[in-house]
Amino acid sequence: MYRTHTCGELRLANAGQSVTLSGWVQRTRKMGGMTFIDIRDRYGITQLVFNNEINETLCDSANKLGREFVIQVTGQVAERSNKNNNIPTGEIEILAESLNILNEAKTPPFTIEDNTDGGDDIRMKYRYLDLRRNVVRSNLILRHQMAFETRRYLDQMGFLEVETPILIGSTPEGARDFVVPSRMNPGEFYALPQSPQTLKQLLMVSGFDRYFQIAKCFRDEDLRADRQPEFTQIDCEMSFVEQEDVLQLFEGMVKHLFKYVKNIDFSDTFPRMTWHDAMKYYGSDKPDIRFEMKFVELKEAVSGHDFVVFDSAAYVGGICASGCADYTRKQLDQLTDFVKKPQIGAKGLVYIKYESDGNLKSSVDKFYNSDDLKAIAALFNAQPGDLILILAGDKTKTQKALCELRLEMGNRLGLRDKNVYTPLWVIDFPLFEWDDEAQRFFAMHHPFTSPKPEDIQHLDSDPGRVRANAYDMVVNGIELGGGSIRIHDSKLQNKMFELLGFTPEKAQAQFGFLMNAFQYGAPPHGGLAFGLDRFVSLFAGLDSIRDCIAFPKNNAGRDVMLDAPSTIDQSQLDELNLVIDIKE
Amino acid sequence: MYRTHTCGELRLANAGQSVTLSGWVQRTRKMGGMTFIDIRDRYGITQLVFNNEINETLCDSANKLGREFVIQVTGQVAERSNKNNNIPTGEIEILAESLNILNEAKTPPFTIEDNTDGGDDIRMKYRYLDLRRNVVRSNLILRHQMAFETRRYLDQMGFLEVETPILIGSTPEGARDFVVPSRMNPGEFYALPQSPQTLKQLLMVSGFDRYFQIAKCFRDEDLRADRQPEFTQIDCEMSFVEQEDVLQLFEGMVKHLFKYVKNIDFSDTFPRMTWHDAMKYYGSDKPDIRFEMKFVELKEAVSGHDFVVFDSAAYVGGICASGCADYTRKQLDQLTDFVKKPQIGAKGLVYIKYESDGNLKSSVDKFYNSDDLKAIAALFNAQPGDLILILAGDKTKTQKALCELRLEMGNRLGLRDKNVYTPLWVIDFPLFEWDDEAQRFFAMHHPFTSPKPEDIQHLDSDPGRVRANAYDMVVNGIELGGGSIRIHDSKLQNKMFELLGFTPEKAQAQFGFLMNAFQYGAPPHGGLAFGLDRFVSLFAGLDSIRDCIAFPKNNAGRDVMLDAPSTIDQSQLDELNLVIDIKE
Repeated sequence: MYRTHTCGELRLANAGQSVTLSGWVQRTRKMGGMTFIDIRDRYGITQLVFNNEINETLCDSANKLGREFVIQVTGQVAERSNKNNNIPTGEIEILAESLNILNEAKTPPFTIEDNTDGGDDIRMKYRYLDLRRNVVRSNLILRHQMAFETRRYLDQMGFLEVETPILIGSTPEGARDFVVPSRMNPGEFYALPQSPQTLKQLLMVSGFDRYFQIAKCFRDEDLRADRQPEFTQIDCEMSFVEQEDVLQLFEGMVKHLFKYVKNIDFSDTFPRMTWHDAMKYYGSDKPDIRFEMKFVELKEAVSGHDFVVFDSAAYVGGICASGCADYTRKQLDQLTDFVKKPQIGAKGLVYIKYESDGNLKSSVDKFYNSDDLKAIAALFNAQPGDLILILAGDKTKTQKALCELRLEMGNRLGLRDKNVYTPLWVIDFPLFEWDDEAQRFFAMHHPFTSPKPEDIQHLDSDPGRVRANAYDMVVNGIELGGGSIRIHDSKLQNKMFELLGFTPEKAQAQFGFLMNAFQYGAPPHGGLAFGLDRFVSLFAGLDSIRDCIAFPKNNAGRDVMLDAPSTIDQSQLDELNLVIDIKE
Repeated sequence: MYRTHTCGELRLANAGQSVTLSGWVQRTRKMGGMTFIDIRDRYGITQLVFNNEINETLCDSANKLGREFVIQVTGQVAERSNKNNNIPTGEIEILAESLNILNEAKTPPFTIEDNTDGGDDIRMKYRYLDLRRNVVRSNLILRHQMAFETRRYLDQMGFLEVETPILIGSTPEGARDFVVPSRMNPGEFYALPQSPQTLKQLLMVSGFDRYFQIAKCFRDEDLRADRQPEFTQIDCEMSFVEQEDVLQLFEGMVKHLFKYVKNIDFSDTFPRMTWHDAMKYYGSDKPDIRFEMKFVELKEAVSGHDFVVFDSAAYVGGICASGCADYTRKQLDQLTDFVKKPQIGAKGLVYIKYESDGNLKSSVDKFYNSDDLKAIAALFNAQPGDLILILAGDKTKTQKALCELRLEMGNRLGLRDKNVYTPLWVIDFPLFEWDDEAQRFFAMHHPFTSPKPEDIQHLDSDPGRVRANAYDMVVNGIELGGGSIRIHDSKLQNKMFELLGFTPEKAQAQFGFLMNAFQYGAPPHGGLAFGLDRFVSLFAGLDSIRDCIAFPKNNAGRDVMLDAPSTIDQSQLDELNLVIDIKE
């Protein structure tokens, strides 16, 4: 037996017991004739003591141990004279009686500490050492807990977890598929699923009633900081439900996770906001409502004052930052620089200071007198001491820029505390999204999303105003998941394909199996999917999903630890009937 | 709201309530002025009654419903005069007051009944309809329960479920990999994991201590009846353990599943058998010990009687079938034909009948007299009424044939009841397996399996006799899982690679990341993996794993429902820098 206890387990009550521990050498300290070694495992750290006067040979061996050596020690638990209140085992130490080196270790290329000296690249190359660090491993432990609690809740609610295949067919619509050449079917390819969307709808046709799966999904996209080629979804679908049923059930799931993983109780119903209001008041379909600072539309109020920037703009809007009227020239310049950054894209920033003495000053005093400014300030319910920030231009771009400015002000004012969680349902998404480049409508969610029954009448005449029974779960400005009620009527589905520019043949080729299935009695159904990686990141307070994934890939889609992808043998290519032909 | 109750929920206590049900039309019967409809969902079947005298229009609508139409019905729960005790809702019926057709349905190509008229091919093509059948769906429900209980047990035991990547590197050793061309890394390929073996060992190096994952694995093999290109493993690994720790913990898991899923309590410790004994007494490394009928080795006893078949055979062995002495000529001929089938491969069958009057008769009376036969019978502890069956020839092949004969006799004697479960640990596997064709040793499990410490001395001199710390869990002759204690010492690992014919360069190229990791302090570790598909099949009493997989592939690796794999667009091939070149 390698151990009687873990390194996080012993307490004062164990004093006097003879124990055996196994683990890694975290730290060695020599003090006089004593050698102190911290031994570490997943569960904690325990202090070992080797006394030169009692056993010189043993102490010598201990002195030769290097960092990260794997050792086994037997000894007696004793009360520490110099207690360490920072760790749970800090009241005791082990008076070592024997030492067994289970494995030696080369010195790691970075320190195994919460604040390591290792950069990103080296940590990824030696990910197995990086994962020894508590701060990294604790994210994976959190992930385990969240997945487990998700399953516990959904099982209680009668959901069945069904594994859908990873080797499926390619559907060129949407993002790029990863494909897998088939040796047994020469010239043909499987595709890895971008999501189990169509398969879960088939399970509804099969009468599974309540399905879920914590499912690996794959997208061959050019990667951004917060994207991975493989990612994990909590994928769910229910039959005989309306939107309200889905929202209530999954609000329950989110509350369950907050309660059992974060020990946070949400007794109230989550607020809901229409997509239209989210765009109008926050310039985003995933507003961070930890703080107010809503947009105020000013076009009408500011027009007709010969200020050509405002007069020529399709949209003028602003926010009111409480207590910021004393912002210096420098601070205001910083904000101007911020909004002018290419990724924000505003042309400039107009401010109005509602000073604490009641006076109003602005960067556009030439065009607006004190009363004008007062009238504008009134639209914000601004108080003395507040700062109003205004952007103008194209509507969509300006709202987006104003959204970024709002979040920046939220950061500056400390209104975005990572330990405060503010969930929100965003509902009533538009069914279609107009694409200027392609000059046609695309499905905002996917082509199976059901329009709201009362809006079906506008499908032909005004597709842009048709709202969908679609919804997103947003927490702190992060979209955790989303879904919709699906179309279960094949006539309406055909209509949708038509509006989306599918010929009947193309629709049949791509979604034939689903459309055929629907002819055999599809129940009304709907569902949603949560991004598990983002959900864990949110709970862990991480900025990137990468640190809640055991073995993530870098921005080039490479696993630098495994050195994958890599070339394969010619014989493998031959068997797959493939030739590589790299164009320059 | 589509329903107030499910179709399996209502009981006599609900009589008088107004309810709404939704589901599929299972069956319609007209009797006089009444129409009875069975409405079905995942939870059960409820009888609806439409009375022509009360509401003719409604009854007319009901009469027009086809099989598998999706309907919603509101009505009153009433006690049935003609109760059906076969279903939980059989005491009540719903007096329908309104009917809403949610979706029409074409007539399915086969009946949605436990005993369907649909053949295998059509059921696979319309798998979404096949899954409506209770017998199929119940396997998937069982699978959900088993996966959930597995997680519950392992979570309780401190295991962390960690998702390892699906897109990893190719290792040409072992079975064939499925590969995935990388668009971002031209000419390079990911591989899909055959198992998370090396990654879980890295997690042990990372100090995860107890890992598990219900993991998808992939093998591009020519498929047999019981193989799928993608399959699911309960994959586990532990640190600071010896074989005994692993066996006890996972014996606990198997008992947990039997208890919570099958309601079967195993209070005793599972029996253990060495690989050597399993081969000697059952001719198999996965013996079915629901019945005894052990092999008896006869070479010594039967030699020297001028019977050339036995004298020239390397191995002579037999089994004793209780109470079969009265087998007819025809029955014995059937058994002879059975063992002579090409897949069994014996040349013939010798029998000895120990007749109930105490006389002994055999097919080799020419060579053995009554006393000889009595002496042989004594070796089997045979009793009057028993039948002894003997095979002779090459040792390995004959043992294999005798194993098949034993199982056949077990079937004939009704000794292999699907509802009796007899678990067994097979231990002490040989470390190496000699391959006649390649004229070299291969690792019986995999190259990371640890030899037994006491056998390490024979590694060079007599590799064939070295036993491994490897073990299999066998139930009813089915190998549910297996694993081993791993090598954690890099010197011993290098030795293994050398014995397996790897050059240091080849070992480095294929397993470099693991060997490097081991230099930074690998703990002693070991684990195992269970085949979830087989485990579910066993619990469901299925002969094939296919019926416990939602969307299985056929023997050509095709998903006939999705029609995958399939050709992909030229543009996809171009992006991947690939050209298809099919050799004739």
